[in-house]
Amino acid sequence: MNDPRPATPVIPRATERTRLAPIGLESARIVSGPWADWQRDNREVTTPHSFGWLERDGTVDNLRRLAPDSDADYPRRGLWFTDSDLYKALEGVAWDLGRIPSEELERLIEDMAGIIAGAQLPDGYVNSFVQAGHGERWGNLVESHELYCIGHLIQAGIAHRRATGRDELFDIARKAADVAVADFGDLRRGDTDGHEEIEMALVELYRETGEESYLRLAQQFVDVRGQRTFNTRRHGDSEYYQDATPVREETTVVGHAVRAIYLLAGVVDLYIETGEEALLASALRQWDSMTGEKTYLTGAVGSRIDGEAFGPGFELPPDLAYGETCATIGNIMLGWRLLLVTGESRFADAIERGLYNLFSASTSLGRNAFYYNNPGQRRALLPPAPVDDRPHRSLAPGTRPAWFECACCPPNVMRQVASLGAYLATHDAHGVQLHQFMPSTLRFPLDGGEVELETSTEYPLDGVVTVRVTATPETGWTLALRRPDWARQASVTVNGEEVSAEPGERGYIEIEREWRPGDVVVVTLPVAPRLTVAHPAVDALRGTVAIERGPVVYALESPDQADGVDLDRVELDVTQPLREDRRDDFLGRPAILVHATGRLRDDAAWRGRGWTAIDEQPDEAGAPIDLVAIPYAYWANRGPSTMRIHVPARRG
Amino acid sequence: MNDPRPATPVIPRATERTRLAPIGLESARIVSGPWADWQRDNREVTTPHSFGWLERDGTVDNLRRLAPDSDADYPRRGLWFTDSDLYKALEGVAWDLGRIPSEELERLIEDMAGIIAGAQLPDGYVNSFVQAGHGERWGNLVESHELYCIGHLIQAGIAHRRATGRDELFDIARKAADVAVADFGDLRRGDTDGHEEIEMALVELYRETGEESYLRLAQQFVDVRGQRTFNTRRHGDSEYYQDATPVREETTVVGHAVRAIYLLAGVVDLYIETGEEALLASALRQWDSMTGEKTYLTGAVGSRIDGEAFGPGFELPPDLAYGETCATIGNIMLGWRLLLVTGESRFADAIERGLYNLFSASTSLGRNAFYYNNPGQRRALLPPAPVDDRPHRSLAPGTRPAWFECACCPPNVMRQVASLGAYLATHDAHGVQLHQFMPSTLRFPLDGGEVELETSTEYPLDGVVTVRVTATPETGWTLALRRPDWARQASVTVNGEEVSAEPGERGYIEIEREWRPGDVVVVTLPVAPRLTVAHPAVDALRGTVAIERGPVVYALESPDQADGVDLDRVELDVTQPLREDRRDDFLGRPAILVHATGRLRDDAAWRGRGWTAIDEQPDEAGAPIDLVAIPYAYWANRGPSTMRIHVPARRG
Repeated sequence: MNDPRPATPVIPRATERTRLAPIGLESARIVSGPWADWQRDNREVTTPHSFGWLERDGTVDNLRRLAPDSDADYPRRGLWFTDSDLYKALEGVAWDLGRIPSEELERLIEDMAGIIAGAQLPDGYVNSFVQAGHGERWGNLVESHELYCIGHLIQAGIAHRRATGRDELFDIARKAADVAVADFGDLRRGDTDGHEEIEMALVELYRETGEESYLRLAQQFVDVRGQRTFNTRRHGDSEYYQDATPVREETTVVGHAVRAIYLLAGVVDLYIETGEEALLASALRQWDSMTGEKTYLTGAVGSRIDGEAFGPGFELPPDLAYGETCATIGNIMLGWRLLLVTGESRFADAIERGLYNLFSASTSLGRNAFYYNNPGQRRALLPPAPVDDRPHRSLAPGTRPAWFECACCPPNVMRQVASLGAYLATHDAHGVQLHQFMPSTLRFPLDGGEVELETSTEYPLDGVVTVRVTATPETGWTLALRRPDWARQASVTVNGEEVSAEPGERGYIEIEREWRPGDVVVVTLPVAPRLTVAHPAVDALRGTVAIERGPVVYALESPDQADGVDLDRVELDVTQPLREDRRDDFLGRPAILVHATGRLRDDAAWRGRGWTAIDEQPDEAGAPIDLVAIPYAYWANRGPSTMRIHVPARRG
Repeated sequence: MNDPRPATPVIPRATERTRLAPIGLESARIVSGPWADWQRDNREVTTPHSFGWLERDGTVDNLRRLAPDSDADYPRRGLWFTDSDLYKALEGVAWDLGRIPSEELERLIEDMAGIIAGAQLPDGYVNSFVQAGHGERWGNLVESHELYCIGHLIQAGIAHRRATGRDELFDIARKAADVAVADFGDLRRGDTDGHEEIEMALVELYRETGEESYLRLAQQFVDVRGQRTFNTRRHGDSEYYQDATPVREETTVVGHAVRAIYLLAGVVDLYIETGEEALLASALRQWDSMTGEKTYLTGAVGSRIDGEAFGPGFELPPDLAYGETCATIGNIMLGWRLLLVTGESRFADAIERGLYNLFSASTSLGRNAFYYNNPGQRRALLPPAPVDDRPHRSLAPGTRPAWFECACCPPNVMRQVASLGAYLATHDAHGVQLHQFMPSTLRFPLDGGEVELETSTEYPLDGVVTVRVTATPETGWTLALRRPDWARQASVTVNGEEVSAEPGERGYIEIEREWRPGDVVVVTLPVAPRLTVAHPAVDALRGTVAIERGPVVYALESPDQADGVDLDRVELDVTQPLREDRRDDFLGRPAILVHATGRLRDDAAWRGRGWTAIDEQPDEAGAPIDLVAIPYAYWANRGPSTMRIHVPARRG
């Protein structure tokens, strides 16, 4: 057993290129509130649910049947990358063990590690698809996901080691990584995986072990990409694979969204360890383009169903939005790395946008059903998800399916929820940065002694975040609190006395003092509902407004509207105030609904026409109506519905 | 050899349910102008081009290799429905022979008929995919397209017979139809093809032969559909195949657009022959919904890439529009049948919208390259189509490809262009209806004697349509001239004297008199450019205007704009006049361009953000700029470009 590192996904080794240092799950506990509830449900509901499906669909059997002593006579089942579904689920369980130990979950990992070890060939290679006789090892890397699967195995092994100090899974993963080094390292092969993931996994393995061949191989995989050498017509062009342009020259995210984002996460990792500025410059350039031109208000990224891909800038139609859950999770991972490097609040803002909106909407409130892609609008009722069955993926049905044939998203949700504590805060030589506001206890060493902070808040139900210092070094240090971009009117008190809420250059309210146990900081963020408009280049959203409240994007969903209120004919009167409506029990939890005043457009004057001359436009609106908005995250939990985030605006 | 019927695709037998009677190509000749040029190029360029690709891609060989005396040792190639590509191309050639005879094209059909006959099994079955050993006859009808292919064979055979009086192809087709009757008739099998087409083909075969078993089988295929019995997960649900709801109960077009529209064309045919009102009611209901809520300004139908499908009403984002060429061609076929039934101008209006816009844009001006799906907007330059190669289909490249692996569209263009004359006019007991305005000669018998009309016009370059009566019965009759829906200010003279241009209840300007040879009718339609807006429920087009001029939809394309005019930042000032700009040689032909006044939005104030609070919206516009619009039909003929039909509107 090794001495465990902090239980956190990213631990930069070359710390001179990161402004902020991460903390582990052992140092950051979410103690109550909706995220704590989700972490509990993630363990108690999602984990058994997921492993049930992984068994049912043969994902575990696919590895079990490869054991040397196996006499299994059943065939391999499912898509060619199902191994990664298991590895991601195991990573989720591992982080969860870093949060709270569990003998049962320890045994689950032991069992699964035994099965994977049984499938692993003596040289370390493991892939249930290739080993089942489908193609040759590394024979079809553009599509095979072999290195992608190994990447997820590495991440799972590292998570388990950091969370528990145990090596079973880690040793398997390292052996698999060693095959990759042996076969690909020093350009023994010049190709790479069609689906990025291995890059960040190898950098993290280097961080965990100090073995530089992993870092060099990660660099090699980044270097060989973008030369238009991927020989495939499956997806039409090289952009899908980020193979059209070398990453150092690329100006924006292109192609398959999850792949593009995973690549960038690996690129930032590589920059941190190698210091090559061109890598960071590319990642920042692409992140700017993505965030400014290719991200929905909910944090959804990747608008195109075709190829699960980014389109050109400002192509953000809500009615055909794809918005894969994994892409937003990837974006949280990328944002986290950029936050560590730059210390700038905009990356934590983006993480928050993703977490409270698309990520939350991806999973049913029962935590046992999921959207793979997340509609940004729903004009017509669709049938509910199949019961006790799973679709492939594609268009989201009227309710969230329990599972998918392509089951990448649910285990990705598992690992994000389980590791969430690690995203709350960081530290640096000056002190502590609080990025996300959740009821939590943070306890970790600073220079000069241990610091402990207890945060209590109902945020985002209200905007009051109370941070109590319960332990502190004697020397002065700075508590930095993120001021979200939307929170222009924030206020802060220390022990009841108002202090400046003006943020520093990196977007944080910085309070430097000699802290004493018992000191209390209260930040009040203006979470009153507001109207948001899209950049005018977004065709599909021109002339619409959305309701936001704090970090939460709201949506109109049909079950909350009065009879006869057809969401396809609703317009929102932007001259009328928005009104909050606190419910103690909305879908089993406290929530704030928002009321707006609208009109119901009377389309009769259009007489069935789709078009008219500009001077002959009818404008028929009825009497004012009440529109009820709920957090987008809660939609589609009451059966099939229609839903709209961006509502046509009218004045009066 | 049989006495040929009129060379026209639809000849109702139960004429009591059609207001209008069709004429044949022998009676309607387009004599000059752009459509005559296209018909010439269709014969001289598109036909050899298409047969070249059909040979090159093995489409003909796939049948050739099945000849009893074949010793071909090459495998079958291409998709499972390639036979239909050949049959549609043959139908195109057949209609072209009805227009102008050609020994060379006669021989081409003879040769191909011989090859098909060689492949046909003794009982009449013919399908190069199944006969190559892929599956069993009728074994996978949901996907196999076997009846779809036979349907196209039937249409080709009928076209050849009506155009030339020859039976070679017709006899093969009838034998194939007889297998279908033998195997499926009287519910011997209760299933049907996943891709509709056979329905209208069988009704037309009944019309051609009087054999009622064809009509009964068409009815059976319509009846068994919509019971959710298609057992496939390939496309997720039954709607894709129009199998979710019986057609008589369906309220709108759903699923795969070409399939949905072909079904409705067959349903109208069936109504005409059987008189079952529920069929017509459904077709009209679905047509209304499609035209009012699911049709782009260009006549594109089917907005979704995923499943090549209709979405819900008002889902018409231009930036992700699919708009398959075949779907608009199908809509022309459907509109024609509804026009014959109702005599209402709105169906001819829809045909005109499709013809001058999406249909014209589908084909390069060189007539040897095609879009399968037709972008409604292009934000970023895409690479040009591959040279001397063909994509599968999917997203349209920067220029039109020469061919496709899924080659349904180019031969569909061929048959539509070749048969276009038959869509110009009809007759009824009262006289003649002129639906489309092209330089043409029409000559056919009315009650009381032969009528001959010579139409000369530059329409739509200008709005003047001159119709000269050169032969006429002695008795009075009515000349009905379509007044397009946009032409509110039309005027008409007869022999120089103004008469009423008010349309009758079915949308036609009706002039009843005792016509004499030499009488001249001049219709003047107001083709000045105008601004058009979309129904406010169309999210993606809110706040935009489009330029139309007569029936022609205009687009801004990058090659025509001044340097620095980024079409993604252009706004059109709707308070300024539109100005015409006649060019004698624009891409090799006369054209009228339209100038508008715009502004170039300065997005710098957005500082890279995608979203802002409603009260903080920047509105930065520079000095007025000139915007140049060209007919949408001409876009993408000058290399990769950006393009926009619907332009954000501003006032001042």
